[in-house]
Amino acid sequence: MSTNISITTPELLLEPHKVKRNIQRMSRRAQEIGVELVPHFKTHQSLLVGRWLKDEGVKKINVSSVRMAQYFASDGWTDITIAFPANPLQAQAYNQLANDVNLTLFVNSAETAQKLDQKLEEDVRIYVEIDTGYRRSGVPTYDIDRLNNLMDALDQARHLHFEGFYCHNGQTYEARDEQEIQEIHNKNLESLLKIKERWTKRGLSVKLSVGDTPSTSKASQFGGIDSIRPGNFVFYDLMQNNIGSCNVEDIGVALACPVVELHRERSEIIVHGGAVHLSKEQLKLRDDTACYGKPVWLKDDSWTTPWPDSNLRACSQEHGVLRAPRAHLDLIEVGDIIGILPVHSCLTAHAMRGYRLPDGSHADHLEGTQFTQD
Amino acid sequence: MSTNISITTPELLLEPHKVKRNIQRMSRRAQEIGVELVPHFKTHQSLLVGRWLKDEGVKKINVSSVRMAQYFASDGWTDITIAFPANPLQAQAYNQLANDVNLTLFVNSAETAQKLDQKLEEDVRIYVEIDTGYRRSGVPTYDIDRLNNLMDALDQARHLHFEGFYCHNGQTYEARDEQEIQEIHNKNLESLLKIKERWTKRGLSVKLSVGDTPSTSKASQFGGIDSIRPGNFVFYDLMQNNIGSCNVEDIGVALACPVVELHRERSEIIVHGGAVHLSKEQLKLRDDTACYGKPVWLKDDSWTTPWPDSNLRACSQEHGVLRAPRAHLDLIEVGDIIGILPVHSCLTAHAMRGYRLPDGSHADHLEGTQFTQD
Repeated sequence: MSTNISITTPELLLEPHKVKRNIQRMSRRAQEIGVELVPHFKTHQSLLVGRWLKDEGVKKINVSSVRMAQYFASDGWTDITIAFPANPLQAQAYNQLANDVNLTLFVNSAETAQKLDQKLEEDVRIYVEIDTGYRRSGVPTYDIDRLNNLMDALDQARHLHFEGFYCHNGQTYEARDEQEIQEIHNKNLESLLKIKERWTKRGLSVKLSVGDTPSTSKASQFGGIDSIRPGNFVFYDLMQNNIGSCNVEDIGVALACPVVELHRERSEIIVHGGAVHLSKEQLKLRDDTACYGKPVWLKDDSWTTPWPDSNLRACSQEHGVLRAPRAHLDLIEVGDIIGILPVHSCLTAHAMRGYRLPDGSHADHLEGTQFTQD
Repeated sequence: MSTNISITTPELLLEPHKVKRNIQRMSRRAQEIGVELVPHFKTHQSLLVGRWLKDEGVKKINVSSVRMAQYFASDGWTDITIAFPANPLQAQAYNQLANDVNLTLFVNSAETAQKLDQKLEEDVRIYVEIDTGYRRSGVPTYDIDRLNNLMDALDQARHLHFEGFYCHNGQTYEARDEQEIQEIHNKNLESLLKIKERWTKRGLSVKLSVGDTPSTSKASQFGGIDSIRPGNFVFYDLMQNNIGSCNVEDIGVALACPVVELHRERSEIIVHGGAVHLSKEQLKLRDDTACYGKPVWLKDDSWTTPWPDSNLRACSQEHGVLRAPRAHLDLIEVGDIIGILPVHSCLTAHAMRGYRLPDGSHADHLEGTQFTQD
């Protein structure tokens, strides 16, 4: 990037061309498969990137915290889902938010429904998370009693208005190619359609929504689904590339890292770029070694594909240890800047709290850099 | 903690009694073994905790960035080492800092020495990192030519004044009990003493410094060492407990996490507390499952030891998935707050950017909460 010359410590480069292309592609996909794109903003947490999504016709968004909801409400977003199990301790904050925007919450148990309804003074819409096997949050598909109790509690609640079922099909993160994504997605869809049918038969209007980036990027069957809620697709990352959700050329952010040491005899480079920049998210490579990132050469306004046979094999708080071919080391000096593609862009963006654009300006992030562009 | 009632989202609790006891213990150890304690402040990044160290007689500190150096310089610290390989791109920042404080840098190659010296206008003291086998930064003990070239470059530099050798003996992180720590430390010490002897014979005054928390916590032989530079010991964590550096009762911070879902049938609790709070640092348990933290009951001004047979087995951006005995689940409701001991307290503190004290007040962190106490 032309701005390299002013970079002295790790900065997260954002390549608008790649990011806008990812956004346009997902937007077109949503139109083609006939679902509404309701993107998750926890990945970028940026008003600027949010505006790029608005330019593509996005009207409703997901966030992962009250603070994030407030941030985007301040930029004119009026339909916001907090896509995390509702926390009755935050009822006051939900009341305030629901005054300003159409607020949707996730409620996954009768206990939460009752506690929340007691404290709410404003009306909110509710999605119920269905757990089809990921075993994180949500009502497991096998637990029919739990779902019945929850639906009864919602029916009796004053302020909670059931909207539909949501599923984060996290099992797709175990996939290793498009076909596996497709198979996992189809099985998931089958479970969800059964549940929808059960409640539709009882006269309820039921929306269905799914959220994981692998299936929203690559699956083809979405019959019965009303909306998709992916987040990671704006940037993608090495994990998504490894799953088969994207090409490596689609990855929209790279950490610019100063080279601080060269160890030619063991073909390793020490960069300033560690766990507090990239996060400790790791991929397992085929030989079972850990990978915390992959190096790229930075260009005027973008970067190359990853170097061959190279791997950020370790990272501590500030250090990154990069294994690379000897021929590459011979081209590098202490004080050069190289790029590292992140394993998990959501966590890297959260850690870096701001972006550097190719024109040298900064893009905002909820946790750090302020929004200055207009 | 008595402040639980006002906690609605994850907060990092700091237990001053435990932290001050850890500080006093390390300070006494340093006196007993006859070395100077020069603690690393990257773990806590807090002016308040820094003052507790000052109260124990600490005069010199380590930090991991220029910003961190500036932060502590602003609170009256005058002898600061940036314990990360010097980055010639930051020469201007080093010049400014060296105006205000006695600045020490790490320089590990002739290339860095020359580049840095060209740009520096102020005098700085230099430690050379020796790599005794950890294979991160530093001159490997086998690379005699590299060390000779570097020492020549330092000799010829105008602004770089050689002070001594430093070693972060990261191999102790592979230890699993005190005896292993001791063995790894002794082997390391032997290598360092040989290098010191070689340069002392040439008429140089050479200081020797070591930094890892396991050996500074548990090893007994420090003959020939002038100073120790541990950081993690102020808080310790599950990783240090696993290595054998501390008891679990010594861990000085715990993440307060709201319970958002209970899954009694599979003995799991979903908490608000994920990778953006704890970091993705993991321990491998004996059965090879990942551990991202261990749960504790919070008390009025502290917390209990970890629950038996319990483990934060997964964490995504905001969710934590906690496996716990059914009997414990029966005592918990949605909306309760439980504590999670971190795997790696440095990264958790960096992610949380501030601390809650038992009296309800907040302690500062460079990256977030401001210092308000006086």
